[in-house]
Amino acid sequence: MSRRLVILTEGHTNPHTAKTACSLVRYRRHEVVALLDSTQRGLTTGELLGVGGDLPIVGSLAEASDANTLLLGIAPPGGKIPASWRAVILEAISRGMNVVGGLHDFLTDDVEFAAAAEKHNVTLTDVRKNDERDIARCVGIRDDCLRLLTVGHDCSIGKMVTSIEISNALNERGEDSKFIATGQTGIMIDGEGCPIDRVVADFVSGAVEKMILAHQHYDILVIEGQGSLVHPSYSAVTLGLLHGASPQAMILCYEVGREGITGVEHLGIPPLAKIRELNEVMASVFRPSPVIGISMNSSRVSAEEAEAERERVSAEFGLPVCDIFRHGASDLVDAILAFKASDAWKAEAV
Amino acid sequence: MSRRLVILTEGHTNPHTAKTACSLVRYRRHEVVALLDSTQRGLTTGELLGVGGDLPIVGSLAEASDANTLLLGIAPPGGKIPASWRAVILEAISRGMNVVGGLHDFLTDDVEFAAAAEKHNVTLTDVRKNDERDIARCVGIRDDCLRLLTVGHDCSIGKMVTSIEISNALNERGEDSKFIATGQTGIMIDGEGCPIDRVVADFVSGAVEKMILAHQHYDILVIEGQGSLVHPSYSAVTLGLLHGASPQAMILCYEVGREGITGVEHLGIPPLAKIRELNEVMASVFRPSPVIGISMNSSRVSAEEAEAERERVSAEFGLPVCDIFRHGASDLVDAILAFKASDAWKAEAV
Repeated sequence: MSRRLVILTEGHTNPHTAKTACSLVRYRRHEVVALLDSTQRGLTTGELLGVGGDLPIVGSLAEASDANTLLLGIAPPGGKIPASWRAVILEAISRGMNVVGGLHDFLTDDVEFAAAAEKHNVTLTDVRKNDERDIARCVGIRDDCLRLLTVGHDCSIGKMVTSIEISNALNERGEDSKFIATGQTGIMIDGEGCPIDRVVADFVSGAVEKMILAHQHYDILVIEGQGSLVHPSYSAVTLGLLHGASPQAMILCYEVGREGITGVEHLGIPPLAKIRELNEVMASVFRPSPVIGISMNSSRVSAEEAEAERERVSAEFGLPVCDIFRHGASDLVDAILAFKASDAWKAEAV
Repeated sequence: MSRRLVILTEGHTNPHTAKTACSLVRYRRHEVVALLDSTQRGLTTGELLGVGGDLPIVGSLAEASDANTLLLGIAPPGGKIPASWRAVILEAISRGMNVVGGLHDFLTDDVEFAAAAEKHNVTLTDVRKNDERDIARCVGIRDDCLRLLTVGHDCSIGKMVTSIEISNALNERGEDSKFIATGQTGIMIDGEGCPIDRVVADFVSGAVEKMILAHQHYDILVIEGQGSLVHPSYSAVTLGLLHGASPQAMILCYEVGREGITGVEHLGIPPLAKIRELNEVMASVFRPSPVIGISMNSSRVSAEEAEAERERVSAEFGLPVCDIFRHGASDLVDAILAFKASDAWKAEAV
């Protein structure tokens, strides 16, 4: 039975909080029946999220009666299910719909949800639930599989989108590339992956290494980055991912105009050059791993401002810079293929 | 009822694997009746672990019949309970003993152990079990509480011991200092703390921050470090701790002669100067945090070699260097008090 999704974004239908919804609409449009947000009823996702065109936003489950699955479409700091959402989740269950969540609050751990699901014979899926228990061993890594990791100056700036678009573009050029999902939205899109921010700290690098080992028959892996090395709430996730992925090269992602760190906005984001330096220093303890391209999220600024920024940053870093949506991924793919052809990275492996 | 401990180290009674046992004997000697290792029966902990003097190693629980608690005394990579230990754990339970473990494998999650404990009315305690679910917010941190963090070039080199000894020595000098435990052994010794390597990655920094907020009425907090920023298995734990603790100064710990990284020995440990640099760079993103002293674990080398090493490293770094056990903590305490008196660290707070 194929999924027909209603994506719940009640009270949160904006591109930042509803980033899970945005990405599902972008990459799994054919599965999405509607978004559910009674405060925005009658509008479209194109109007509110800039993606999905005329995909409707409905005000109740009854208005999307052909859907069979409710998907929780937000990713807030801390990952709690909003209390006001309980009623609609229970209504979906009572209508015989499966429910898919990616939050830290697990549907399957909630006694009321679990009992209702059993009664109505529906499935609750917690994408973040895992029992990872392997430490990284740093053995058996294939030297000639090129591992690219997206890193960034903050959360929610486009690391997942950049990774997917780069991997897709590489495959369109005839390369043998695979996107590696490390977060709930990426897993919902790709159908596999590991929600590393939900893994016990001792096993973060091991969980990433396990994905690398399982997929290194591909020539190129494009690994979804998480958080930021300078995010005081989430840097553990970021460094564990960096060391578990052991990339030979990185793509640096940032959002133009982002100043404060997500969730701790009173702390300013350090300059992009510092972000690059920290990532290269921490990635390169055992294996050189340069930043070879920059993915700029310029959604907050005009096309003219984006062009000026692109030229300025490209000149500052001596690297290709592009906004995936405005310019496509071709400049980054060119840089990746040039790096891949250089062969220097193979000799440098541990 | 006071604890009377038998510490289980069966097959592992050496200072490295049995580091939990070593530290319990060192700091909670009055609670320890014996170690249990049938392969070393009749020897003493003084002979095998270099601590505890004539504390006996027994071959069976029957030989320590006045004990009321079995404590699992090892901390292996991955944290699994050795399969061969199940029988003695079940025997202890059937004898009416409580069992305390600090491994990733939880006693309370084991159906057979849990059933036996219920039947015999004893308590199973998993020191690493936690439900931390708060992200770090970076607000409310007291600027004039001096937070010292021990960092190091690898696991199991003496960060906990250094932290305890420094905090104790500070208090003996009339300061108002508190040791903050972040690992299973530290928690078993101090009676409180958070096992941060067992916390879900998103909440590591938050769990540490919570301990800081709860104890910042002390003038000085000496926070137990974990792992190493260059440990490819555990660096997530280390960076999350570093950012959650937000130290104003650090003590750098290392073991003389340690060459390979614990558990991944085919990877060499970078030079100590590099370790200092990485910790200072990553700690100082938002707040300067210099290394102000070096704690040298010289247990593998002679007294003469230790002295030569001490002079060499002190000259290289321009910092006080001491082996806590050979030289005491006074040089480090002097450095800490000089730093505390300088007041520069207060002005630098975010």
